Amino acid sequence: MVQDLSTIREVLREALASYQDFPSPGVLFEDILPIFLDPNKFQMLLDGFKQHFAENNTRPDVIVGLDARGFLFGPALALQLGCAFVPVRKKGKLPGEVFEAHFSKEYGEDVFAIQKGAIKRGQNVVIVDDIIATGGSAAAAGSLVELAGGNLLEYSFILELKFLNGREKLDAPVFTLLTGQCESSSKV
Amino acid sequence: MVQDLSTIREVLREALASYQDFPSPGVLFEDILPIFLDPNKFQMLLDGFKQHFAENNTRPDVIVGLDARGFLFGPALALQLGCAFVPVRKKGKLPGEVFEAHFSKEYGEDVFAIQKGAIKRGQNVVIVDDIIATGGSAAAAGSLVELAGGNLLEYSFILELKFLNGREKLDAPVFTLLTGQCESSSKV
Repeated sequence: MVQDLSTIREVLREALASYQDFPSPGVLFEDILPIFLDPNKFQMLLDGFKQHFAENNTRPDVIVGLDARGFLFGPALALQLGCAFVPVRKKGKLPGEVFEAHFSKEYGEDVFAIQKGAIKRGQNVVIVDDIIATGGSAAAAGSLVELAGGNLLEYSFILELKFLNGREKLDAPVFTLLTGQCESSSKV
Repeated sequence: MVQDLSTIREVLREALASYQDFPSPGVLFEDILPIFLDPNKFQMLLDGFKQHFAENNTRPDVIVGLDARGFLFGPALALQLGCAFVPVRKKGKLPGEVFEAHFSKEYGEDVFAIQKGAIKRGQNVVIVDDIIATGGSAAAAGSLVELAGGNLLEYSFILELKFLNGREKLDAPVFTLLTGQCESSSKV
């Protein structure tokens, strides 16, 4: 049974668990893991993205997912869309030749990598991850898609920390399946 | 179209990429990532595990997957089996109360965690990961399932480094979908 996007949003938001002061004091962490405890909810998560893509005529050839929570749903989404799945991982985790992109984190810098040849020149790509916060890691993934010659259609997330304005770092459309935390909320 | 296990093995082994001296000199790394570039091969991977479970009357309630490569296929497998998916991650990566298990690595010790409440007492569990090497991380995951009160049916891997005898560390049946590297092989 296919449900509409508003029903999907309602059920999935209800499934999230919230943890105050994780991973650091003052942060409210919204945990997506309960969704994966129930295969019906997991399927609704995939249906949510699929409906959004269908409505926008977004037809990726490749889903790129970020290590590690982007791996939880990116491969299943790719499978149901009939796409390739390509992982972005920290430098040193992928064998063979890779493209690399540096990005800034709260403390210092990190390097993401993607295998050369995994994305073919001109393929349409959607980048997925669980959450967009500062946008640094997503922007680095976007650079990797560009280095590989892919055509980046969109960034798709489950959640968004709107007050961090991560979208502004990204040079492709951004979709978040569930309504982001509100800037005026006392939640964060 | 459902294919038999020997056809599945043949196609998937053909899809693996091999990298000499990764991640360290003298090691031949077998890369499963090409499987995820082709949704037909990814589905064959899932079908391989599903057929094995069906043949052995293995009926898990929960698939437990190890961070990060166990996330690539564990959630999709759980979805197609109608199971829950529960991740095992490094300590500090999961919010809320967790069970912890220590294990030895090449250099020093590491700690794995699983969320309390994710596995219900008495639920049937299969632990999945891409590869069994020394078996240390899989054994730690087994301890976590035991702490949670789960009933561990089996460990399922895609590949096995047989010469490391990792199976001997595990106190439940071990299945590897693709034939493991051979002890007498010059490959490693």
